[in-house]
Amino acid sequence: MPNKNAVKVMIDGKLITLGGYESEEYLQKVANYLNHKIRELTESGGYRRLSPELKSLLLQLNIADDYFKAKQQAESLESDMETQNSDAYDIKQELVAAQIELKKLQAENEELKRKITG
Amino acid sequence: MPNKNAVKVMIDGKLITLGGYESEEYLQKVANYLNHKIRELTESGGYRRLSPELKSLLLQLNIADDYFKAKQQAESLESDMETQNSDAYDIKQELVAAQIELKKLQAENEELKRKITG
Repeated sequence: MPNKNAVKVMIDGKLITLGGYESEEYLQKVANYLNHKIRELTESGGYRRLSPELKSLLLQLNIADDYFKAKQQAESLESDMETQNSDAYDIKQELVAAQIELKKLQAENEELKRKITG
Repeated sequence: MPNKNAVKVMIDGKLITLGGYESEEYLQKVANYLNHKIRELTESGGYRRLSPELKSLLLQLNIADDYFKAKQQAESLESDMETQNSDAYDIKQELVAAQIELKKLQAENEELKRKITG
């Protein structure tokens, strides 16, 4: 198991120590993302007037929305890949059939050429 | 533009009205997800002893972590698809080449047969 890290990050202007097995780089990336979301929300007028509790909930809903959109994208890509795999399989089968036919014709050709020259 | 919905959802035991263009089904799914995350965190002893502010931050970090993992999965699938696309292109080229060669051999065969029978 990797060592547990204690990483200091700044979230919403507050210095917080995060403990975990994730790399410092990853935890900083998550903190940057949260700060970006908070900034985005703060820029919309309504958010600033909300209670801290509602602000926090709105932020959670926004992050969850990003999560569901990324999840949806991954699921849609997975389904595209399945279709692609099945298409690729069909093309491979066609290629194998063409290669078998090629060998057959090549042998037939050799035979015919022998008949003519021999 | 679709109509704006006002949907009542229960999050962390509180009834909240969400307004937005997302479907009621989607907003309920997001609320269920948040409740699931809160339940998960509450089951770990340490969380219950935290201040509401830290609880909220821990929840945000957890959702953000889910988001980054889903995003990472989508990115990795995208990269797999690019490789697959390039492989499929190569196989298609190979198939086209085999089909051209087949036609050539078939014509050659016909010609040889004519020489023998004619």
